[in-house]
Amino acid sequence: MKLNQIINSIQPLDKNAMAAARQRQDTLTKPLGSLGRLEELSIQLAGITANPLPRLERKAIITMAADHGVVAEGVTLYPQEVTRQMVLNFLNGSAGINVLARHIDARVIIVDMGVIGGFPPTPGLICKMLDFGTRNMAQGPAMTRRQAIDSIETGIELVEAEASKGLDIVGTGDMGIGNTTASSAIFAAISSLAVARITGRGTGIDDKQLAHKVRIIEQALSVNKPDLKDPVDVLAKVGGFEIGGLAGVIIASVARRIPVVIDGFISGAAALIATGLSPQVKDYLIAAHVSAEAGHKLLLEFLGLKPLLDLNMRLGEGTGAALGISLAEAAARLLTQMATFAEAGVSEAEPQK
Amino acid sequence: MKLNQIINSIQPLDKNAMAAARQRQDTLTKPLGSLGRLEELSIQLAGITANPLPRLERKAIITMAADHGVVAEGVTLYPQEVTRQMVLNFLNGSAGINVLARHIDARVIIVDMGVIGGFPPTPGLICKMLDFGTRNMAQGPAMTRRQAIDSIETGIELVEAEASKGLDIVGTGDMGIGNTTASSAIFAAISSLAVARITGRGTGIDDKQLAHKVRIIEQALSVNKPDLKDPVDVLAKVGGFEIGGLAGVIIASVARRIPVVIDGFISGAAALIATGLSPQVKDYLIAAHVSAEAGHKLLLEFLGLKPLLDLNMRLGEGTGAALGISLAEAAARLLTQMATFAEAGVSEAEPQK
Repeated sequence: MKLNQIINSIQPLDKNAMAAARQRQDTLTKPLGSLGRLEELSIQLAGITANPLPRLERKAIITMAADHGVVAEGVTLYPQEVTRQMVLNFLNGSAGINVLARHIDARVIIVDMGVIGGFPPTPGLICKMLDFGTRNMAQGPAMTRRQAIDSIETGIELVEAEASKGLDIVGTGDMGIGNTTASSAIFAAISSLAVARITGRGTGIDDKQLAHKVRIIEQALSVNKPDLKDPVDVLAKVGGFEIGGLAGVIIASVARRIPVVIDGFISGAAALIATGLSPQVKDYLIAAHVSAEAGHKLLLEFLGLKPLLDLNMRLGEGTGAALGISLAEAAARLLTQMATFAEAGVSEAEPQK
Repeated sequence: MKLNQIINSIQPLDKNAMAAARQRQDTLTKPLGSLGRLEELSIQLAGITANPLPRLERKAIITMAADHGVVAEGVTLYPQEVTRQMVLNFLNGSAGINVLARHIDARVIIVDMGVIGGFPPTPGLICKMLDFGTRNMAQGPAMTRRQAIDSIETGIELVEAEASKGLDIVGTGDMGIGNTTASSAIFAAISSLAVARITGRGTGIDDKQLAHKVRIIEQALSVNKPDLKDPVDVLAKVGGFEIGGLAGVIIASVARRIPVVIDGFISGAAALIATGLSPQVKDYLIAAHVSAEAGHKLLLEFLGLKPLLDLNMRLGEGTGAALGISLAEAAARLLTQMATFAEAGVSEAEPQK
């Protein structure tokens, strides 16, 4: 099976490349450790790519869109058709992710994983629709187990196709009205944390709507009883097509040693599915930012990830990932392009007396 | 007098441009406020530039270098000649700041404000040497009052020259063995905080050397008695030529409504001098990051600034500022390039029930 094959192909980080990168960092013309997180990141990038001098030139954001049946329960602020409208906005190059992708010189790959209404063949849109949105998880499973596996394998195929065009680093992005509800449900199912602690306002619901959203998620968990030991079961019962797709993007990137930068809460839920399928994935992940969505901080802690940025953002689409990719590129450039003390003829620190 | 003229020309932020930018942000295709700090930053940029659609295309880092007589007291880890060697490294394009400036497509302007030994005429180096390093502030004033004013006016002239070539945003950078000592002394003089609280390890001194550094700063303050109400006096007695120069860069940028991104602790000391000369400056400042240097967090709090990044960096040179400029550019691009709901035909939030 494709998913199992790729999971089995995942290797640990390359310790030799990391040691070589660490050694090089310590000879570059700067006080020891003075680039802080960027040094750590550069060493992780060396370990991921198995290259002590990683190059991150060909950049992409994969933004996956899908609809969510649970929207019928009134958990969101925006009407469901916004998913479809925003995909058109992406295709016009006018959304937040388009602006930031241009800023960091990355391509944006827009994928329809299951948007209600679908799209006519449209240049720039990759159609991988699995269904007309998920079903209402408050009443039963969001999707079949087959669909859950298909969604993950779709993400895997996409990375394989993009890698063949040249891909040095990838960011995850999402669009889907209702998908913070699915993401909180996934996180609650896998972490066993209380739903109220990890459920946030999404696009901006008020206190009353938030309490309702929590109740709906609790109902979905109680109706479906997802098996926390089986990430595919969790995805099928309370997930979403774009979340499964992003889990596949993460797994395939890790298997191919392509650094993958995780966006916000929804991408974080995908990372939970991916690390559930292969715990090795965790070492590869780069958390772009901690979002303003309640629960994201806890999700990152659960995954053991330290975000690079904390800018109070909560837009999704891959906007945080884009900024994270820029920092990863900066880290790789510093490691590879700075002169060493010897090369530059700069004196090193004097022995401490 | 040039310095006084420019101080008197500083205007408040443009409230109309800020209101227009705020209004535009609220119509862009994203949930209200979902770009967090980047929205706030875009509005500040509108207020600084007096343009509701600010464009930040022509970017520069001004990195000023000078030596410090207080190095004679053994407060640093690296030998004093490293200041000069690092300037040559900058000119070769091989230092951290060169790499990050290329990453963000900014030019780097390297200025000798008073490096011991000086330099022969060298392409790419702007020679504004005020003296062969400052004098040892532990024994008396670091420089004359005339030199302090000259250093600030040199920074002002530089920004005027660069602005005539085209300059939309500027970052501050420093190089000078011993300059965390001067910066802590400036901050202690202006804030009256205990020296031990705001003095850090610079390039990496140990506990014993840190205790010695604190004593030397206390001695410098006690010998010189800088007048906290007179920023030029503080700069003259316990400052540095590059710090005065950067204060001038900040003041001139503010006066010309060019956004100025403040790097780390040394640039922060320059910002203290600049805001001391004109409190209006504070509203214009963009703090790139909080550095790992002890005292920087307190300095930012003292200035009322919230840093954009927290990456445990402490290299100086303008490396933090470069990353901050990239975020400022991202913020401006989002404000100016994203589609509005009306333009994109995207439905807005439903009225809350």
